[in-house]
Amino acid sequence: MLASKTVTELLEAFASPTPTPGGGSAAALSGAVAASLFAMVAAMPKTKNGTQEDRLMLDAILDDLVRLRKTLTDLIDRDAASYDGVVAAYKLPKGTDEEKAARKRAVQDAMRVATDVPMETARASASLITLARVIAERGNPNAKSDTTVALSMAQVGMGGALANVEVNVDSVGDEAYAARLRDELEVMKTTLGMQLLPIMTALGWKGHIPPRS
Amino acid sequence: MLASKTVTELLEAFASPTPTPGGGSAAALSGAVAASLFAMVAAMPKTKNGTQEDRLMLDAILDDLVRLRKTLTDLIDRDAASYDGVVAAYKLPKGTDEEKAARKRAVQDAMRVATDVPMETARASASLITLARVIAERGNPNAKSDTTVALSMAQVGMGGALANVEVNVDSVGDEAYAARLRDELEVMKTTLGMQLLPIMTALGWKGHIPPRS
Repeated sequence: MLASKTVTELLEAFASPTPTPGGGSAAALSGAVAASLFAMVAAMPKTKNGTQEDRLMLDAILDDLVRLRKTLTDLIDRDAASYDGVVAAYKLPKGTDEEKAARKRAVQDAMRVATDVPMETARASASLITLARVIAERGNPNAKSDTTVALSMAQVGMGGALANVEVNVDSVGDEAYAARLRDELEVMKTTLGMQLLPIMTALGWKGHIPPRS
Repeated sequence: MLASKTVTELLEAFASPTPTPGGGSAAALSGAVAASLFAMVAAMPKTKNGTQEDRLMLDAILDDLVRLRKTLTDLIDRDAASYDGVVAAYKLPKGTDEEKAARKRAVQDAMRVATDVPMETARASASLITLARVIAERGNPNAKSDTTVALSMAQVGMGGALANVEVNVDSVGDEAYAARLRDELEVMKTTLGMQLLPIMTALGWKGHIPPRS
């Protein structure tokens, strides 16, 4: 389990020249850190306006943040496992025509898993960005830079996962599936674009978006 | 030591509603993951063009990547420690005028450290982005999504750290220092903007930059 490793060991595992863990696990980790930082700010006693409504709204999203952190932490391992499946499929024998056909099907099946898993990472990270508005508008303003870092890490969780989806989706050999995912992907990107402005405005970053400028 | 914790424990620490570890440590972690993923790609036997020059260039940056990973891993803890220093300074007594003056100086000194430390994170992450061009132009093209995620995590390392610098720098009470850092910060952002395009072009992302789009 990658999540049971120490941070130093996980970094060592990322750095080793084997395919996994790679960018997909890193994207999930990034999302998990984002969920944790948002939860930190949501759980702080101080809120932006000091109102009962702030408290209720922040408390209301805390369960979701904890759940998303768990989902994204699991995805660190699930992403590595899914790509290990792809590597294993490529190693199947390809001597006879039957073996070639079986190998091709196995690669396509493994590629579907290795596409579905980062899609889950992207969706969970997108949910975080939706919740980020509550943090930005009602969370402790002293934690503005924590919220900002969390927001950018959630974007890496989403964007990094989508980069993995884009790289793998065409190897599934299912055009309808690829088209469906690409549609969802475009909607996620458009939604992200619309969500970012009010969040950055609430955080009071003027004229530039620090982690992205 | 945060780097000696398991990933699950570190996420728990981020999520707890105490000020540290917070966004600054998360930015350093993000940079450390980026350094690790770049090192993974640099160390892979396969290169983009399969040339001796590719191999030499990738080998040449590997030592830097390992060093930057260590620097950034240390910064996970150093950032938390620096902000603990700020919290401790704020807790100093402020009964008499002498105590008030001593407390003010202690807060300013601690804020200087809490500004210098994320500046180091930003500089180390900026160095990673400079090295990323070699990875993008000469590294294993099958690891394109890993390189993409690493690039966006290096940007979070830089941008997230700079958000912390911006939040803390004015509390140091040294206008010349603040102006010097803001100048460096602007140069870093401009340099980043100029560096990103050739990297994304080398990675073959057309018309959009996945983790930022």
